[in-house]
Formats: sequence, C-alpha cells, structure tokens
Amino acid sequence: MGTDIMGRQGTARISCDALQLLLEQVFRNAGASWRVAQVLAANCVACERDGSKSHGVFRIPGYLSSIGSQWVDATAEPRIEQVGTTFLRVDAANGFAQPALAAASPILVEMARQHGVALLAIRNSHHFSSLWPDVEPFARDGLLALGMVNSFACTIGFDGKSAVFGTNPLAFAAPREGGDPIVADLSTSAIANGDVQIAARQGSSIEEKVGVDRLGRPTIDPNAILDGGALLTFGGYKGSAVSMMIELFVAALSGGRFSFEVDWSGHPGAQTPLTGQVVILIDPDHGRAPSFARRAEILTRKLYSSGVSRLPGDRRMRQRQRSLSEGIELDRTEMEYLTRMAAKTGSETLSA
Amino acid sequence: MGTDIMGRQGTARISCDALQLLLEQVFRNAGASWRVAQVLAANCVACERDGSKSHGVFRIPGYLSSIGSQWVDATAEPRIEQVGTTFLRVDAANGFAQPALAAASPILVEMARQHGVALLAIRNSHHFSSLWPDVEPFARDGLLALGMVNSFACTIGFDGKSAVFGTNPLAFAAPREGGDPIVADLSTSAIANGDVQIAARQGSSIEEKVGVDRLGRPTIDPNAILDGGALLTFGGYKGSAVSMMIELFVAALSGGRFSFEVDWSGHPGAQTPLTGQVVILIDPDHGRAPSFARRAEILTRKLYSSGVSRLPGDRRMRQRQRSLSEGIELDRTEMEYLTRMAAKTGSETLSA
Repeated sequence: MGTDIMGRQGTARISCDALQLLLEQVFRNAGASWRVAQVLAANCVACERDGSKSHGVFRIPGYLSSIGSQWVDATAEPRIEQVGTTFLRVDAANGFAQPALAAASPILVEMARQHGVALLAIRNSHHFSSLWPDVEPFARDGLLALGMVNSFACTIGFDGKSAVFGTNPLAFAAPREGGDPIVADLSTSAIANGDVQIAARQGSSIEEKVGVDRLGRPTIDPNAILDGGALLTFGGYKGSAVSMMIELFVAALSGGRFSFEVDWSGHPGAQTPLTGQVVILIDPDHGRAPSFARRAEILTRKLYSSGVSRLPGDRRMRQRQRSLSEGIELDRTEMEYLTRMAAKTGSETLSA
Repeated sequence: MGTDIMGRQGTARISCDALQLLLEQVFRNAGASWRVAQVLAANCVACERDGSKSHGVFRIPGYLSSIGSQWVDATAEPRIEQVGTTFLRVDAANGFAQPALAAASPILVEMARQHGVALLAIRNSHHFSSLWPDVEPFARDGLLALGMVNSFACTIGFDGKSAVFGTNPLAFAAPREGGDPIVADLSTSAIANGDVQIAARQGSSIEEKVGVDRLGRPTIDPNAILDGGALLTFGGYKGSAVSMMIELFVAALSGGRFSFEVDWSGHPGAQTPLTGQVVILIDPDHGRAPSFARRAEILTRKLYSSGVSRLPGDRRMRQRQRSLSEGIELDRTEMEYLTRMAAKTGSETLSA
C-alpha cells in the first residue's frame, strides 16, 4: 500500500500521496465511481493535511454511512447547463458537491476570464466538508472567488427558538503577490458542527453562548446540542443575516433545498446534507486596476504591522508545510480503520 | 417652500417630498450639480424616512463641510467603462458614490438580465451613507443584489492594535413574493460609526466590547473611540475576515483606496471617505429554479414561525410606512438648520 507508517505511540504517519491512494480505495470499496473517489479523497487529504481535523478522516464513517444508506449516489454524473453567458447551473444528480464543482470549474474559469465575472449554482448536491478547498484553487489561478453552501437545520436565526439555518459557511479566496492566496472559510454558526461532534467524541465541553439544548436553554454540553439542540449564529443578528443570505443564494437561487427542507428520515445512517452550493468567480484583471495580487499583499502587510498575529488561512498553510514534509499524523485507530475499509470488498463495506 | 411644518414641542414634521426639495436646495447651495443634489437628497430622505437617523439629516453638516473643504467634487461626472461582458468599471472622478451608481445602474441591470450576473466596481468615490438604499431598488426589479463599501481606518482587525479597516458594510437585497424585498445592511464593525457619533453628541455611553481608546484599552466612551480610538469588528475573527474581504473587493478590485489609505489631512473639514464600492447583481430567473421570490417568501415564513421576531429590513419598512403617512419627524434645530442652509446662497455656504 505504500503507506509508510512510522511506529509512534498511538499515532501513525502517512504521506499525503499515500493517504490519497488509501482513501480512493476506501471510497471505491464503498461503491463510488473512480472520479468521485478521487475528488472526495483529495478533499479529505487536503483537510487532514491542513489541520482541518473535523473535516478530514474524521468524516469517513459519515461518508460511508451515507453512501450505504442509499441517501447519496456516489456514482452520480453531474449535468452541466449554461443558462446565461456567465451563469452555469449544475444538477449534481444527488451526488457529492465536490465532483460537480470539479466538472464545472474549467467552464466557470473560462467564463470569468472571458467576461469578468461568472456564477455557478449547484443543486441536488451533498457537501460534507470544509468550504475552503472549493475556493482556494481559483485564487491560485489568479481569480477572486466567493463560495457559499448550506447544510441541515442545526442553527437558530437570531432571536429564534428552533433551528432553521445550517452552519452555512461563507468562503473567499484572493490571489496575493509573493505568497499563498488569502483563503477564509467561516461558518455562520457560532462554531462548526464538526467541532461539536469532535467535542462530543472527546467528552469535552464547548464554549459558552454558542449553543442551546432541545428546550432552547444555553448549554456547553455538545451532546445536548446534538440531541435536538441547536447552535446560535456568530455575531448575533449580523451573522444571522449572513446565514439567511447564504440560504437565499444556495437554495432559492440554485433550486436546491433550504437547510430546513433536508429530510433524511427515510435513510437511517445518512449524514451528508443534500442542498446546494454557489460559487462566484471574478477575474480581477478586468478591473484593470493596479495588480490585484500586489494590492492584496499590501493589505496583508498592513494588517500584520497593525498587530494582527494571524490572517485567514495562515494556520492551515503552516500545518500544510509540516504535513508535506513530515507526513500527516493520524490516530492509530483511524489508520487501522482506513486500512480495514480499504481492504474490504465493496459488498462487505456496504453491509458493514 | 411647502415644508408643511406642524408645530410640536421640539420637533417638526415634514413630508418626504418636501424634505427632498429642501435637501436638493441645500446641496445646490453648497455647489452640487442638480444631478448630484437630487441623488444625495433622495438618499438622505430615504435614510431619514426609514429611521436610519445616523445616516439621514444628521449627515448634512458632514456633506457640506466635505464639499466646502474641496475634498469632494459635488459636480463630478462619473466615467463609465465596460471592461468585460459582465464587468462595469466606473471612475467616480472624486465625486459621490451614489450618483456614480445611479449612472451605471441601468447598464448593470441590463447586463445581469442578459447574461445572468454582472459586477460593478466604482473607484474614486465618496460614500457617506447607509448601504441598503444602494441595493434595495435592484430587488424591487426582481434581482438579487450584493453590495460592499469601505470607509476610513476606524476598525481594528481581530487581534490587532491599530485601525486598518473601515466600518465596511455588507448589504444584500432579495425579491420576495407578496411582500417587500429582504434587505440587510450590516457594518462589519461591531457598531456603525454614525451610532458612535450620535452617542457622542447625546453624551451617552456605548455598549461594552465594541470599541477601544487610543491606547487600545476597552472603552464605552464614544469620545474616546472618536479621539484616536477604534472599533472592533463584529463577531470576532469571522467579522474581521468579512471586513478584509470587503477591503479586497472594493479597493483591490475596483482600483480604489483601502480604508487605511484615505488621507484627508490636507482638507480640514473633510468627512466623506474617498474609497470604492462594488455591487454584484444576479438575475435569479437565469437559475431557472422555481421562482426565487416565492422561495424567499417560504424562508421568511419559516423564520417567523421559528420564533424570529424581526428580519433584516423589517424595522425600516415599518418606519417607512409611518413616515409616508405621517411625515418625517425632525428636531426643530435640524429643521431650522436645513431651512437656513436652503436659504443661503452658494458662496455663503461655502464660506460658512
């Protein structure tokens, strides 16, 4: 398998390439097409590599459980439709959002380069990961990208009593001269669902003023949030307005579901929200301003000199460098789980 | 003048139309062209009418002072340049942003309708008002609109020590079936600068955790914030990321100034930030989803039924109804000031 595991107490190290191959096999065994397996594996590796632990290997059981429940089609072929000079519409056909995005991206990039700005609206898509991997590549191509996705009702609107919004992240990526792109990914819930799940698994509490229990009472118990409770939006009514905007963009505009319309009750084990996604791409060169990337670097330097210790994406980029040189560190139990899932045949995995 | 002032203790009432004519004359007397006077007056009336007191008549002295200082050109003619099929670039020529937007809007709307999405980048523009009046009209035309503007350095980045960002509002407007559009306007600073100014004028304190004094210490004294202090962003590092995104869009993309680059030191009395503005328009019908406006109404109803008491724009719309039927209530001192400024000749105003 070429996993080059090094023997350490409780942990294992694996190169990014080896983890990619291992995860591809895991997804293949679960019944995914090669294309879907490759895209999902690359997404998972990117998250794990950059330290987004809550959206990396940690999510594999959820992926496999959702595929096994027939809730998501891991062999779906996205249908791409150009509905305007700069408007691309994709039916992900009940498949994952990332393969749909991958299929549409070359067309979208060409649209933005040719016309200045372009919009991609994906519907009938499952998104179960961080959003930053979806926008960063565009910034590396010199484009300014804005991404939005909703999920399932787990967050209450400001002043509300029951969950309507998903965690609804907003992400943007901008090229920067002489450095990595600026890449931000922020859930509009006060914290990410993955972090609640991680806390629940670790038996730790979460910070105050981010969640309520099933009766709407403030709680720091992650299990109380997961068991019929809900998250608050970040930043009070303003975060709530941004979350609402995201629902409008990714559901009303794309033709996908609002977070509160996701109904997986007929598919026990389903964990991947079936909603929509929007990406807006802008070619800064059409602005004919002094180089956008140079200006982005000037803003970055000014922020550091003002005392800001860390900008969006900084921590990920530092972790990425470490992972690329030293390999990715996984728990031994995670490593054993992946090895077992990669060794199984498809039918065994589906019935597991 | 037809101002139909009614005699009440300390206040005066004036109809929206009469206030429009009065403000046009005030701006004309200050040296504004008819076109600029009409647009700025309409903007001011809209803010006052909808209860945005901090961006209505309250701003007139700032407008007049800025014009008088030669910092802004109140007769500027915007130069519109189409730099891509869906990319419109405008040099506001050191004039106000709203007349530049008004000039570009018909072209932008046509672009969005024809191609699905369109982007407007204005530079060399002064924006001294709320942002919602800039986006609401598009939603009334059935379009989904996103607006951003920066201002002058008065807000620190998360974890920073000195101000880099402006108050940097983000606004969006979406059509809604059977009701007024959904219109949100949120400064990415913890509170709006106008509210700090209002608090300073009234001698009241502001809430905790929104501002620091000139030494970076937390304060609830609006004067300490205005005197070399700064605001925090809303929602911690997430709001800071959104504020950074807005700087990138409206300055790096448009070719305008970052908030920290605004230098009015050579123009005593200048108060209007000279920066840039971006508007993104989307024609939802290109998504060919079930009617966007109907879906927006479904989301709205769901939010109310979840216990949310007020959605973005609700308070403004209620105040608007009242103002349209009963007139706008102004302080007597404001009314007298406006009457005086409307009666002056241009040269007197400039030297005032």
